Amino acid sequence: MIRDLRICFVGDSFVAGTGDAAALGWVGRVTAAAWHRGEGFTAYNLGVRRDTSADLRRRAEAEILARLLGAGTAQAVVFSFGANDCTLEDDMPRVPPEVTEENAAALLGWAAARWPVLMVGPPPLAHDAAHDARVAALSVRLAALCDAMALPYLALHAPLSGGPAWRQAAARGDGVHPDAAGYAAIAALVEGWAPWRAMVAE
Amino acid sequence: MIRDLRICFVGDSFVAGTGDAAALGWVGRVTAAAWHRGEGFTAYNLGVRRDTSADLRRRAEAEILARLLGAGTAQAVVFSFGANDCTLEDDMPRVPPEVTEENAAALLGWAAARWPVLMVGPPPLAHDAAHDARVAALSVRLAALCDAMALPYLALHAPLSGGPAWRQAAARGDGVHPDAAGYAAIAALVEGWAPWRAMVAE
Repeated sequence: MIRDLRICFVGDSFVAGTGDAAALGWVGRVTAAAWHRGEGFTAYNLGVRRDTSADLRRRAEAEILARLLGAGTAQAVVFSFGANDCTLEDDMPRVPPEVTEENAAALLGWAAARWPVLMVGPPPLAHDAAHDARVAALSVRLAALCDAMALPYLALHAPLSGGPAWRQAAARGDGVHPDAAGYAAIAALVEGWAPWRAMVAE
Repeated sequence: MIRDLRICFVGDSFVAGTGDAAALGWVGRVTAAAWHRGEGFTAYNLGVRRDTSADLRRRAEAEILARLLGAGTAQAVVFSFGANDCTLEDDMPRVPPEVTEENAAALLGWAAARWPVLMVGPPPLAHDAAHDARVAALSVRLAALCDAMALPYLALHAPLSGGPAWRQAAARGDGVHPDAAGYAAIAALVEGWAPWRAMVAE
């Protein structure tokens, strides 16, 4: 029997691939790479611009169930969010870190009770140093949560902050979202991540 | 002010791009082509494998609203479904043509009251002549409905049935879904369709 894997990618504009002129984003790139290895799967991109973890709690369950329930021979969910939670509105984050953590625990826990689950952390926000610092702190917090839940977590913030490439990609994009090269950089990190490769290959 | 267009593509596996090793499908191809022309927009792919028009009525409104409400400076919806309605189960179509027409009228009417709406018809089903004949008949019926509703309809079935390319693409794919070349053929038809070009360019 041929494996028929369905994966939902749930998150924000970075999941959606906003600004990528190639219309792939990192999700499309890792999907195409898997097909190239002979490990093709069905990808459902559920990234929505501006979505916080609170927004995801309102829509993720129904959208995931509509795509995974009774579908294929294997299913999985990859989450990636956090950057929009850290956006200030009236000097307050749209979602405070402790609530992001609650939301993440609820989302990940619900999904992990049903399917294999991975989490990819938020990328750097090159346009705003204070916002970026909040994202960096949230990424560490989400990593600790995933560790406590025994779920794999891939940090993007630290590796992408280590050189000028991400900042340059965002500058070529709209300032926040990178161009295609930035999405390719995320895809390379995901491709090099053992839990991702194991999930797709199993 | 720069135009910020968000488009939801709502439908079935052909919308999702199932089987495309390039992870683009026709939606990704027309999105990348628009970026190439300097008319980039945000594409939300809401294609789900096996979905009939009845399935779409259950999920489409919530999923579209989560992506378009108050988002960007312009919004639009492109529907494409019908092939799964024509699948036989216990010798009956999963959705009879008159109910597909009711569902289509409800979906298109709801969306067209809010945003510009286009409909792309179902493609041929190369693996099963009887199924394909039902799809051909449904495509004509959906075209008449869209005409009555004054909504643009792009037939895929007739043009893709006119030569061997689609059948060959499906044979290289899984028998039902084409390979990348088949999705490129759909994308070329959409790209050459004036209502699509006008929607993206306006």
